[in-house]
Amino acid sequence: MKIGIFDSGVGGLTVAKEIKNLLPNQPIIYFGDTARTPYGTKSRETLLTYAKEDASFLLAQGAGLIVIACHSAASTATDVLKQSLDVPVFEVVTPSINQALALTRSRRIGLIGTRATVSSGIYEQKIGALEPQARVIGQPCPLLVPLVEEGWLNARETRMIVKKYLRPLKQQKIDTLVLGCTHYPLLKKMIQEKIGKRTAVVDPSLEVARAVKKYLLENGFVSNGREQDKYFVSDIGPATEDIVRRFMGRKIELVKV
Amino acid sequence: MKIGIFDSGVGGLTVAKEIKNLLPNQPIIYFGDTARTPYGTKSRETLLTYAKEDASFLLAQGAGLIVIACHSAASTATDVLKQSLDVPVFEVVTPSINQALALTRSRRIGLIGTRATVSSGIYEQKIGALEPQARVIGQPCPLLVPLVEEGWLNARETRMIVKKYLRPLKQQKIDTLVLGCTHYPLLKKMIQEKIGKRTAVVDPSLEVARAVKKYLLENGFVSNGREQDKYFVSDIGPATEDIVRRFMGRKIELVKV
Repeated sequence: MKIGIFDSGVGGLTVAKEIKNLLPNQPIIYFGDTARTPYGTKSRETLLTYAKEDASFLLAQGAGLIVIACHSAASTATDVLKQSLDVPVFEVVTPSINQALALTRSRRIGLIGTRATVSSGIYEQKIGALEPQARVIGQPCPLLVPLVEEGWLNARETRMIVKKYLRPLKQQKIDTLVLGCTHYPLLKKMIQEKIGKRTAVVDPSLEVARAVKKYLLENGFVSNGREQDKYFVSDIGPATEDIVRRFMGRKIELVKV
Repeated sequence: MKIGIFDSGVGGLTVAKEIKNLLPNQPIIYFGDTARTPYGTKSRETLLTYAKEDASFLLAQGAGLIVIACHSAASTATDVLKQSLDVPVFEVVTPSINQALALTRSRRIGLIGTRATVSSGIYEQKIGALEPQARVIGQPCPLLVPLVEEGWLNARETRMIVKKYLRPLKQQKIDTLVLGCTHYPLLKKMIQEKIGKRTAVVDPSLEVARAVKKYLLENGFVSNGREQDKYFVSDIGPATEDIVRRFMGRKIELVKV
């Protein structure tokens, strides 16, 4: 079974990478919507349109399962895609919520992400349904994506900005923090350092990869083949290939569609 | 004559504002492509497609003149639009170049902008044609747009990042600096401070407004009417209205198309 992964751009490669780590022989088809990236500043209505188009593309390429790697799309379009598609739909929000609820003791959970993700209210809603006494403290961090894409992973400026964004979450005494954006795993160490050792950090890329693996194992869909992975994007901009190398740790061939 | 202005998003409002300052009674039609913003990370091919669509929309709305407010689009799509459209096309690059060449003594001109603008090579090409001994020193500044959109106009982090970006230009001893992105006029004071008093700063929003006014005066197209300005966008995201207020200094009504 081919795993179709879509994202607003190249950030979802953190998800692709974790899936390949756990399922090295499972063929993946990636689609990054780099011609319209980012999704995190856009409206719910626009995100729904884009997410439907992205999923259709992956199905047309033969995907038997869809992973929504983009948190902004997952936060707004999951229910619609689950209803309208005939294949299983996985996404980064649900497994992260399960992991956050498993880890928290104080039931004060922090969420960092784009404005679209934080303002969607999906974490509050889903966590509230499972654990009514838990509280979600959201913090939009719009500068972290451009800082990662600029490659300033260890810059002093990045440290200061991460610290500034996390301050309200520390003051709110969260004990668990969800990295609600595909780019944030590249800043995981810095974020862990700034939020403090006693706060558990949930990495959705890893959690969704685990959920996909569990599903494939339980249903006998794990591949042993050697089919080629495919990485499609809707645009290749002046820095796209550099950014991809930073995410994957190696050069990969991008196909523009 | 209605002035049609298009931009990748809301940054072009700095251009709209300068045009309204110089031509208060001239009706404007603005289109901001917020559903696909930003343009500065995208390829030449994709920018050409978007620019053609944006200009067509403005013509369909009755624009008699097109202003390309987006530097990334102006850097890549001006020639194509000039050839294919029957109306005059103004853009932010040409008048800025003329002003920079008028101001420079050392003929060492700095350019800050998005990656698409800086890597287009248009400034080098056009300046080289007019003044072969002049040199353009370009510096992409991808973090400045998100810093402006986050509203961190006076933040310490913004100061540090501006200083870092401008350092190579100072070392190269430029005496004139072009603000090659619609968002940068909001950081003009800080940029002037960091680059030093002796460097002239060229604001393309103002230069293109002057060029449009000159054309309208010379051709008898200046309006005295009271027609309503119209501001169209392709999406209204969670922060769009706040950002618009920051650019215009007041609330304006956006129409989503």
